[in-house]
Amino acid sequence: MEKIILASSSLRRKRILESLNIPFKSVSPEIDEKTAFTKNIELSVKKCAELKVKSVMENNKAKWIAGFDTVVELKNEILGKPRNRYEAKTMLKKLSGVTHKVHTGVSLACSYKISTDICTTFVTFNKMTEKEIEFYLNTGEWNGVAGAYRIQERGSFYVNSIKGSYSNVVGLPISLFYVMLCRYNFPINSI
Amino acid sequence: MEKIILASSSLRRKRILESLNIPFKSVSPEIDEKTAFTKNIELSVKKCAELKVKSVMENNKAKWIAGFDTVVELKNEILGKPRNRYEAKTMLKKLSGVTHKVHTGVSLACSYKISTDICTTFVTFNKMTEKEIEFYLNTGEWNGVAGAYRIQERGSFYVNSIKGSYSNVVGLPISLFYVMLCRYNFPINSI
Repeated sequence: MEKIILASSSLRRKRILESLNIPFKSVSPEIDEKTAFTKNIELSVKKCAELKVKSVMENNKAKWIAGFDTVVELKNEILGKPRNRYEAKTMLKKLSGVTHKVHTGVSLACSYKISTDICTTFVTFNKMTEKEIEFYLNTGEWNGVAGAYRIQERGSFYVNSIKGSYSNVVGLPISLFYVMLCRYNFPINSI
Repeated sequence: MEKIILASSSLRRKRILESLNIPFKSVSPEIDEKTAFTKNIELSVKKCAELKVKSVMENNKAKWIAGFDTVVELKNEILGKPRNRYEAKTMLKKLSGVTHKVHTGVSLACSYKISTDICTTFVTFNKMTEKEIEFYLNTGEWNGVAGAYRIQERGSFYVNSIKGSYSNVVGLPISLFYVMLCRYNFPINSI
């Protein structure tokens, strides 16, 4: 069975590929994400996903390599990973009661030919009270995630609705990735 | 810590409550779902969720009891659990390339006071080829689920986008359930 090299060490991306029965091996890319970022957010996440694939490709002769980069955008501002509880609180206050976007750049190399695309999901939060924000901060879920919430855990309490792909918000837009794999004739029918 | 009685034996609902850290005990309700169903689909799922709660309430003095009922609707027709591969194939062909609705009725009893609501999500499938339908039927995921697909597994390959609550499609609309718990002052802040 053909294996995909996942150019990511993200646990949630590994969990998604496992749930889909897609054979993979995870390899951490070595890139400076800052070099990918420009004023155009959508171009930047695509570039970043592609850099991850290229970084792994340098030391790996695998046929299939996939890279992903996910960012949370609110009114043209990127909400990264909060460095502390105070930053997480500021982000949650911004997200409360409004709609933001989550973009994931998807880059797939097949025999050194690279194809890259982007998936965007709109996420609408309910209005959060001060007490709810404090409760959520206490869960610690904000730690290590862009936008300071995890939709796959208790962050979902406050997500009123989404429009687009759910798995994109978790970090790997399944349907787009599937279409890209099919386009390159990945033997999906034998997984 | 207060525990909720989940009037359901659905594994996916249990997994959702676990992921949210909500303490619960699962009890199978004994109802004849057919008695709840009328021409009005939305009223029917609410009634069915409520009947599940009432059924468990008869033999259980717990303060908190929650019941859920999920159906897949396509053009005023309910797609139930396929009884065999042929029925599953017919359903997948109907879902291919179009948008359908998933409704979940949510019923919550707090000290014998019952409140019931409904959540609806729109799910849009990509057009599936004959080969894709055969592949998906071979995964066996269609077995035992309304609409013959599991969005949380490989059914996600074909889901182009959703509008509304994702967890609703899995069987338990988290945000609505959370709001109902808060309304009854469930001690969510101490979970």
